[in-house]
Amino acid sequence: MTRVADYIADFIYKQGVKDVFMLSGGGSIYLDDGVARNKNLNYICARNEATAPMMAEAYARLTGNLGVVYVTTGPGGANAVSGLAEAWVDSAPILIISGQVEKNRTTFNARIRGLRTLGIQELNIIDIVSSITKYAAIVNDPDTIRYHLEKSIYFAKSGRKGPVWLDIPLDVQSAIVDEEKLEMFHHWEDKIDSKVLELSIEKIFELLKNSSRPLIIAGQGIRMAGAIDDFKKLVERLNIPVIFSRLGQDILPFSNKNNFGHGGMHGSRFTGLIMKQSDLIIGLGSRLAIPFVGNNLDGFSDNAKLAMVDIDEAELKKPGVKIDLAIQADLKKALPVFLSKLSAINLPDYSQWLEMCKNYKEKYPLIIPEFKRNLIDLYYFVSRLDALSGQNNIFVNDAGSSNFVSGQALKFEKGQREITSGAFASMGLAIPLAIGCATADKDKQILAVTGDGSLELNIQELKTMSFYKKNIKLFVINNGGYVSIRNTQDALCEGRYINSDQASCNEVLDFQKVAAAFNLPYFNIQNYEEIDSKISEIISQPGPAFIEVVCDNKQKIIKPLKIETI
Amino acid sequence: MTRVADYIADFIYKQGVKDVFMLSGGGSIYLDDGVARNKNLNYICARNEATAPMMAEAYARLTGNLGVVYVTTGPGGANAVSGLAEAWVDSAPILIISGQVEKNRTTFNARIRGLRTLGIQELNIIDIVSSITKYAAIVNDPDTIRYHLEKSIYFAKSGRKGPVWLDIPLDVQSAIVDEEKLEMFHHWEDKIDSKVLELSIEKIFELLKNSSRPLIIAGQGIRMAGAIDDFKKLVERLNIPVIFSRLGQDILPFSNKNNFGHGGMHGSRFTGLIMKQSDLIIGLGSRLAIPFVGNNLDGFSDNAKLAMVDIDEAELKKPGVKIDLAIQADLKKALPVFLSKLSAINLPDYSQWLEMCKNYKEKYPLIIPEFKRNLIDLYYFVSRLDALSGQNNIFVNDAGSSNFVSGQALKFEKGQREITSGAFASMGLAIPLAIGCATADKDKQILAVTGDGSLELNIQELKTMSFYKKNIKLFVINNGGYVSIRNTQDALCEGRYINSDQASCNEVLDFQKVAAAFNLPYFNIQNYEEIDSKISEIISQPGPAFIEVVCDNKQKIIKPLKIETI
Repeated sequence: MTRVADYIADFIYKQGVKDVFMLSGGGSIYLDDGVARNKNLNYICARNEATAPMMAEAYARLTGNLGVVYVTTGPGGANAVSGLAEAWVDSAPILIISGQVEKNRTTFNARIRGLRTLGIQELNIIDIVSSITKYAAIVNDPDTIRYHLEKSIYFAKSGRKGPVWLDIPLDVQSAIVDEEKLEMFHHWEDKIDSKVLELSIEKIFELLKNSSRPLIIAGQGIRMAGAIDDFKKLVERLNIPVIFSRLGQDILPFSNKNNFGHGGMHGSRFTGLIMKQSDLIIGLGSRLAIPFVGNNLDGFSDNAKLAMVDIDEAELKKPGVKIDLAIQADLKKALPVFLSKLSAINLPDYSQWLEMCKNYKEKYPLIIPEFKRNLIDLYYFVSRLDALSGQNNIFVNDAGSSNFVSGQALKFEKGQREITSGAFASMGLAIPLAIGCATADKDKQILAVTGDGSLELNIQELKTMSFYKKNIKLFVINNGGYVSIRNTQDALCEGRYINSDQASCNEVLDFQKVAAAFNLPYFNIQNYEEIDSKISEIISQPGPAFIEVVCDNKQKIIKPLKIETI
Repeated sequence: MTRVADYIADFIYKQGVKDVFMLSGGGSIYLDDGVARNKNLNYICARNEATAPMMAEAYARLTGNLGVVYVTTGPGGANAVSGLAEAWVDSAPILIISGQVEKNRTTFNARIRGLRTLGIQELNIIDIVSSITKYAAIVNDPDTIRYHLEKSIYFAKSGRKGPVWLDIPLDVQSAIVDEEKLEMFHHWEDKIDSKVLELSIEKIFELLKNSSRPLIIAGQGIRMAGAIDDFKKLVERLNIPVIFSRLGQDILPFSNKNNFGHGGMHGSRFTGLIMKQSDLIIGLGSRLAIPFVGNNLDGFSDNAKLAMVDIDEAELKKPGVKIDLAIQADLKKALPVFLSKLSAINLPDYSQWLEMCKNYKEKYPLIIPEFKRNLIDLYYFVSRLDALSGQNNIFVNDAGSSNFVSGQALKFEKGQREITSGAFASMGLAIPLAIGCATADKDKQILAVTGDGSLELNIQELKTMSFYKKNIKLFVINNGGYVSIRNTQDALCEGRYINSDQASCNEVLDFQKVAAAFNLPYFNIQNYEEIDSKISEIISQPGPAFIEVVCDNKQKIIKPLKIETI
C-alpha cells in the first residue's frame, strides 16, 4: 500500500529520471512531499514556474530521457504555459505534473458552462494546455495513476516527441493505493509495413539517380531517433552536402567535408547559395520549417525536387511546403533500410557538386578579419568562445542577436553540444536551459550567451544558478537593449523605436550590481584584445559566473547570400 | 484610409484608455508602431509579458475602464497566460492584443490536425486562451477590425466582466482600410424583465421577515456594477451586519457600525462567529466562493437560508453552494428596486443581532498588544502601515502571508483603496499590480507589501518601477522564504520542508544589493520601535522605494474563530 504522491515520485525515478524541476505550493502539497520523501530523486527549485519546463526540456534533450516538472494549481500551472509552449514546438518529451484542488472542487468535474474557478486557486488547466500537449488529463481515480503515468510517458516519448500534462487533485495525491492492483496502460506497437518503407526508399533512389546536385537537410529528428551513427554512414557513402536546421547543427563538426553547417534564413553566408542550387532536397528529421525554407520554398530552386522523411504526418502535409516525396517514418527504422539498399544502387558521381559547395564555404567565410575590432563584434566574440571551448562544453543561447549569431558562428569541432530553442527562441530562455543542462550532466560546463534584453525576462533564475552552484558561465551581451527589434523597427517602422532602445524604456541595468544581488562572481570583457585571456581565465574555474561583454550596439546580423547576389 | 495598427491604437484611445502595457516583438511590429505613432497613447513596457495583464488588471480596476495589453506572437502570448488567468478569475475587463505571423502562416488557418507551429515563432494562441477569455478571435479580415474591437470590448465590460483576446496577423496589422466602410458590431441590450426582478426581491423580503439574524455578504460586484451608493443606503436602512469578500473590503471603513470587515477562511477573528450564527445570508455581488463559505457551506449554520444576487449564472449554479433564492441580476438594476420597495415593508428589528455582532468585534480585536514586539509581527506592521496611510494611498499585496495579513489588518478608515488578487493570489503579483495602479492614478501613492518568496517571481519588474519612477513604496517582508508553505508542510507533511525554507533552496537574497541592482532607494525596518518613524519618513517622499522589513520567520496566520470555540 502506498500513497499516490509517493508512487508517482518512485515511478519517475524508475524511468531513470534523477532530477525534477519544481516550485512548491499548497495545491501540490502531497506531490511535493512525495519528492521530499523519495531518497533517490533530487529536486531543483525554479523561482517562477515559467522556467521549470524549460529546465526540464534541456534536461530531456541532454539525457535523451524524460524531463519532469512539478507545479501547483491555478497560477502555478498557468505560469508554466510559457515553458510548455517551447517544449511543444521543439518536441521535448517532458511530463508536467500539476497539483489540483480536491476533485469535487474542480471546474473540470463540475462541468458548468462558464464557471471560472471553484476551489482554492482552482483553474481548469487541462482545457488551457490540451492544444499544446500530446496528452493532458486530470486523474480523478487514484487506481488509474499507473495507467495515466504510463500513457503520458508513452505519448511523450513515442512518435514525434512532446510534452504531456497530468493534473492531480489533492484527494488523489494523498489517496492510498495497492500498487499490485493498479490498472496498466496497454498500447500496440506501431507495425511498420517494411514493404512500404522499402518502396518509399527506392523512390528516393530514383530521385537521386536523376539528380546532379542533391542536398540533405538534417535536423534534431536524427538525434531524437537515436540514428546519428547511421546518418553519418549515409552521408559518407552518398558523399553529398549536408545542411542542418538549428537543433541538428551540433551533430557534425563544421570541418567535416560534407557539412555546410546551419542553413535557412539565419544560416551561414554560403548556405543560401547551396540551397538555391540544389536540384534535390532530402529532408531527414528536420521539419523543413517555412522560416527555414522560405515562403513558397523560395530558398530552393523552382525546379528542385523535395523528398522528406519525418515522423510527424502534420509536418509532411503542412501548407507552404510542397513535398514531392513524403515518407512518414521513424529514422531509426528508415536509415538502416536506406543503407542496406545503397550498395546495390548505382548513383551518379556528385563530387563536382560537393567541390562547388566547398568553394563557396571557403570563399565566403562567416568570420572575417574586420570583425576583430572595438567595439566588440558579437560574431568575433562567439567565434572565440567556440575556439577556446572543448568537448566538456555545452553552448546555450537566448533570443535575438545571441541566438542568430550562435547559430552561425559555432563550429562544434571538439564535440561540443548545443542546447537551444528551435522554433520560438523565447526571450529569457538561456538561464533556465543552462540550469537544465547543468543538472543533467554535472561534468559539463555550460557556456550560455544572453542579451541585456533577454536576461531580464527570467532574471530571477540567476538565484537558482547561484544557489545550486551550477557550472554555468553566463555571458551577457550589453548592446543597449533589444538590438534585433531595433533592426526590425529600422527596416519597417521608419526608425521609430518603441520598447527597444534605452530612451524607450530599455535602459541597461548595472550588471556588476545585478551579479552582486544574485551572489554571482562578476567579470567583464570590454575590448577585443582581452577576449581570449578573459575567456580562458573564466572557463578554467568551476561554478557559476556572470560575465558582461560590452558589444557594439549597432550589431548587424549576417544573412545568407542569395543566388542573385553572386 | 488608415493602417489597421493605427486604427487600433486610435480606437483604444477613444475608449478613454490613456495607457497600454506592452512588450515589443517582431510579430507585433506594426501593432507596436501604431502605439509609437499615436501621440495620445502612453505605453508602459513590462520586462516579461507575464506581468502586462496584471498591470492592465489593476489599471482597469482603478479607472473603471478597460485595461489594454500588447504582446507579440508565440512566446509573447504564451507568457501572458499567467496574467490572463488572474484577470479571468477576478473579472477584470482587459483586452489583450497579440501579434501573429502572416495569416496564411498560422496553424489556426492551416487547420491541419497536430501541426505544432508554422510561421516564425508561430503559435495558435486562440486555442490556448479560449477557455479563460470571454471572447478570443484571430482577425483574418482587415475590414472586420472594428467589428472585433467593438465585440471584444462589449464582452469585456458587459455582464460579469473579464478578459478578451484578439490575435492579429502581420499582414492584417499593416493592411490599409477605409474607416468609413468598416463593419460594425451590433448587440441587443439585455432586456430586464422588471416584473421578474420585483418578484424575486419580494422573495428576499419574505426571507427577511422570517429572519432574526440576517447578514449581507458583499463583494466587488457592487463596485463593478457602479452601485456603491445604493448599497450604502441599503445597509443603512436595513441596519444589519455586512461582511465583505476580499475584493469588496475597501467599500466601507472598518469603523462603520454595520461593517464587520473581511470574512471567510481568511477573515477577522470574529467573522467566523457572525457567519455561523446568521439565519439568513444575502450575497450581493460576491460569488460566495467555496474557500469563503466553507466546504458544504460549513461556514454557516445548517439552518441558515441563502439568497444570492449575482450577474453570473454559473456562480448561482455551482456545486458546493446550495442557494435557496438565486437571483441573476445586475446590481445596478436590482438595488434601486430593492430600495424603492423597502419603505413599504415592515421588517423585524435586528438591533439585538447587530449589538451581538458588535460585541464580538470588540471582544476579539485582530491586533492585540502582544503583536507589538520584536521580531516584528506582520500583523502589527500592516496595522501601522494602515494607520499611517491616508486617502492618497492604494494598498497592494502579494501571495501568502502578506495577502492573508493585509486581508485582515487593513481598515480603510480614510478612503484608501485596495487592489489585490481575489481568487488566485499568484505569487509575484504585487509589483505588476502596483505598476498598474501607479499608471492609472498618478496622484496616488501605492503601498505594496510583498514577501521574500513572492518578490522573486516577477523581480524583473523592479526595473519598470524604477525606470518610470512610479510612486510605489514596496515593503518586502523578509521572513526566511515561503512562510505559508512552511506552515502547510508543518501541518500536513510531518514538518518535511521542500522548496520552502532556506536549506531547501529558499535562501533569502541580500535585498540591499537587489535594490541597488534595480536602481531603487533602499530602506530597512528591523524592529518594531522604528516602524512608525520609518514609515512616516518613507511615505513622505514621492517616487519609488524598496523597503526591507525584517519579520518573524515563524509568523502564524490568524484564523477566524469558530462557533465551537467560544
